[in-house]
Amino acid sequence: MLGVDPQNDEDLSRILLSRDLAQFGDALLNFAYSLALTETIGKPRGTRVPDKVLAEAAVKAGLRKHLPRRVGRGEVANGLEALIGHSWLQKHLTLNEVLACLKVESLTPANNFVRLAELALSRLEK
Amino acid sequence: MLGVDPQNDEDLSRILLSRDLAQFGDALLNFAYSLALTETIGKPRGTRVPDKVLAEAAVKAGLRKHLPRRVGRGEVANGLEALIGHSWLQKHLTLNEVLACLKVESLTPANNFVRLAELALSRLEK
Repeated sequence: MLGVDPQNDEDLSRILLSRDLAQFGDALLNFAYSLALTETIGKPRGTRVPDKVLAEAAVKAGLRKHLPRRVGRGEVANGLEALIGHSWLQKHLTLNEVLACLKVESLTPANNFVRLAELALSRLEK
Repeated sequence: MLGVDPQNDEDLSRILLSRDLAQFGDALLNFAYSLALTETIGKPRGTRVPDKVLAEAAVKAGLRKHLPRRVGRGEVANGLEALIGHSWLQKHLTLNEVLACLKVESLTPANNFVRLAELALSRLEK
């Protein structure tokens, strides 16, 4: 799906493993997710994205293979947060684009984050 | 400073005491604060605004007198989060405006949140 060449792959691994980016992405995703919920249900909500959802989405979006073999679920989830944090700071993604991904009605919440991850990845390749 | 009439004051108290708005505002402020830090120091940062800072700012911005007498510091801090959450959802404040308040170099971090609270209050009165 990604078609990244080795050099890009190295860059992507570095992004996914950045703790600083993951912490920034965590704040961004919690806000965007809260805003998406708020706009969908028409009542203010503030919540965190469950790590389980992030980890599932990261695996489905193919991030696992860019991470060292022995990382656990928490670090896979962090990888997705770091990717989205990076894309925000590089201005690859706007808040409205993040919201558009997260506001889709879905039986599997992780799928919305898969969509977001795929959008972020597609813009990395440019 | 506020010049709110009794009816507006009742509305303001209701906003400040909303748990839902406070939770939404918490997610918003943590993201905006993380982004302001990130842009100021030039490195990604993800962090929470300390309750102590929020409570100090809420008092300085005059929110205390719109809350019941016996509320504790945590609820005063929640009041500020609720106010900012409300202002965001009413489109009284943009992300850039929030960032502009929070990015000012200040010896007292709470003062940046005072500035933000005052901006939000001034737009409520319109």
